Amino acid sequence: MADFTLSCPVPRITDETVLMAHGSGGRAMHRLLEAIFMPAFANPALASAHDGAVLNMNGKQIAFSTDSYVVHPLFFPGGDIGTLAVNGTVNDLAMCGARPLFLSAGFILEEGLPVEQLERVVRSMQAAATAAGVQIVTGDTKVVDRGKGDGLFINTAGIGLIEHPIQIAPHSVRPGDAIIVNGDLGRHGMAIMAVREGLAFESLIESDCAPIAAPVLALLDAGIHVHCLRDLTRGGLASGLCEIAETAHVHIQIEEMDVPVSENVRGACEILGLDPMYVANEGRFIAFIPPDEVKQALATLGDQARCIGHVTSKDDHLVTLRSIIGATRIVDMLSGEQLPRIC
Amino acid sequence: MADFTLSCPVPRITDETVLMAHGSGGRAMHRLLEAIFMPAFANPALASAHDGAVLNMNGKQIAFSTDSYVVHPLFFPGGDIGTLAVNGTVNDLAMCGARPLFLSAGFILEEGLPVEQLERVVRSMQAAATAAGVQIVTGDTKVVDRGKGDGLFINTAGIGLIEHPIQIAPHSVRPGDAIIVNGDLGRHGMAIMAVREGLAFESLIESDCAPIAAPVLALLDAGIHVHCLRDLTRGGLASGLCEIAETAHVHIQIEEMDVPVSENVRGACEILGLDPMYVANEGRFIAFIPPDEVKQALATLGDQARCIGHVTSKDDHLVTLRSIIGATRIVDMLSGEQLPRIC
Repeated sequence: MADFTLSCPVPRITDETVLMAHGSGGRAMHRLLEAIFMPAFANPALASAHDGAVLNMNGKQIAFSTDSYVVHPLFFPGGDIGTLAVNGTVNDLAMCGARPLFLSAGFILEEGLPVEQLERVVRSMQAAATAAGVQIVTGDTKVVDRGKGDGLFINTAGIGLIEHPIQIAPHSVRPGDAIIVNGDLGRHGMAIMAVREGLAFESLIESDCAPIAAPVLALLDAGIHVHCLRDLTRGGLASGLCEIAETAHVHIQIEEMDVPVSENVRGACEILGLDPMYVANEGRFIAFIPPDEVKQALATLGDQARCIGHVTSKDDHLVTLRSIIGATRIVDMLSGEQLPRIC
Repeated sequence: MADFTLSCPVPRITDETVLMAHGSGGRAMHRLLEAIFMPAFANPALASAHDGAVLNMNGKQIAFSTDSYVVHPLFFPGGDIGTLAVNGTVNDLAMCGARPLFLSAGFILEEGLPVEQLERVVRSMQAAATAAGVQIVTGDTKVVDRGKGDGLFINTAGIGLIEHPIQIAPHSVRPGDAIIVNGDLGRHGMAIMAVREGLAFESLIESDCAPIAAPVLALLDAGIHVHCLRDLTRGGLASGLCEIAETAHVHIQIEEMDVPVSENVRGACEILGLDPMYVANEGRFIAFIPPDEVKQALATLGDQARCIGHVTSKDDHLVTLRSIIGATRIVDMLSGEQLPRIC
């Protein structure tokens, strides 16, 4: 997600140098944003704590978002850095309720990158763009010396058009809202992790990397009153929920038994000591909707979708999880790093 | 400049790995673009060979552009990577004749970057954005491991609004057009080079890094029929002219005695064996305009501006330079690298 749009209550950074944790999607990253970027760039679009900026341009509402991609390794089961770079930004636009239209692409190549790898990535990008219905209309290439990069970094920025009048944003979340997710969690993170650690599980875990504009627009077309959307990338479901609880000043209650996680992802997480609630996804989102529209929303999203919890009237800005055995615990943002360079 | 918009006649890449030359703004970079990016991403906006994409969005003409910035060192006389990242993209939008409005900013931080340096850069970006009249509305931060980056890379993408009906593009260039430049050349490249090589010249050379949207819009407001614009970044004046001669299928004739280069830049170039025609600028552009509007255009741009040459009716797609002593030579794009990582 485009992450300047986050909000958290800690306004000071005490570290003297940048740490890996500052890119994690957790507390440390939020502190960096709050301490350095938000005060300098202060403006209403940035302050809205959204996945992208919603802008008025000559009477039209457009969404604008950006992400840089530094995933390691460049290729993984279910995709590569190119698929990720297209879908990631397409999905940020979708989270604003926009129809994604145009992407830019900026490449930072490390001297020595095999040209064949670059070609594969570029072809993946075009295939992903076609699948998502967007055009890559402008771009840039820079080369850095060997040892000053890591093969290939890609930035994409995207423009989408908002065609409906609904205010999709954290501040639209209301007590009573139901929270639905469009599919099972944790596949992208575990796919990367398996390649990186050279692990072979019983069945191959493939990234869920996919464009999610179509299901979001289907919800809107079906007349669902979507209050807020969030794609579950860095930091996973847990971080997405915590961000929204904090920004919207609400309490969120999640039912563990309703959170969909596949058997092989659950098994891989257990082996590696990871919590699937924090593992990154690249084709999953949560939607906050009125409770009486859940049935229709799930029918629209298909049989992988689940209702996983709801917003309560407490204003403690917390997320709690009721476990399968009935115990309730607080779900917090991680302070640092669970899986570095996942996207 | 956003460089996928370039066009050159060499459709094949024979190198097996990426070389520094592929980022130079010269022939090698153009070959990479033509061989890999252009065929994959083929679409009309990309094919227009412009500094940014000009898009129709619900009846409005907008410009969209991106650049990644990998300049080394991060700080230099007259600016830093932050000023560059804002002005570079603002200027690409200006080259489409657009009023720059919104920027995104994507940061790739290397673990270990001093936070104080990041703060300085972010403050520079905000100051540059204010000066250029744009807002930084969305952003992203990634962190890569120590040794996998080089302190700080920044990508910006920008959106501007095109408020006039003029088609500013290489294909609008006509035989007879005069070519004007808005000031003296080579300061950005030589400022970087001086810091990098530890050279002290008699007087400090400061980068010309500046936003050029205001002078461009002033030309349009004055009723000048601007046919084409190009900012003179990587590859300098020579590469900008060669690109336009090739894309527009025209011949360009330049008068060396009219090309403005300051004494200290000329001196520094002589010491280092560089040609100021190829040195990067970050606040300079050329405009192709009807010859009878030169006087008014120069008056609008101020006393640093010069008319440096014109378009002839030959269709050899070449650029020629008449030297001060009257000899004429062909100006070609460099094949590789004069100054790596200048922007």
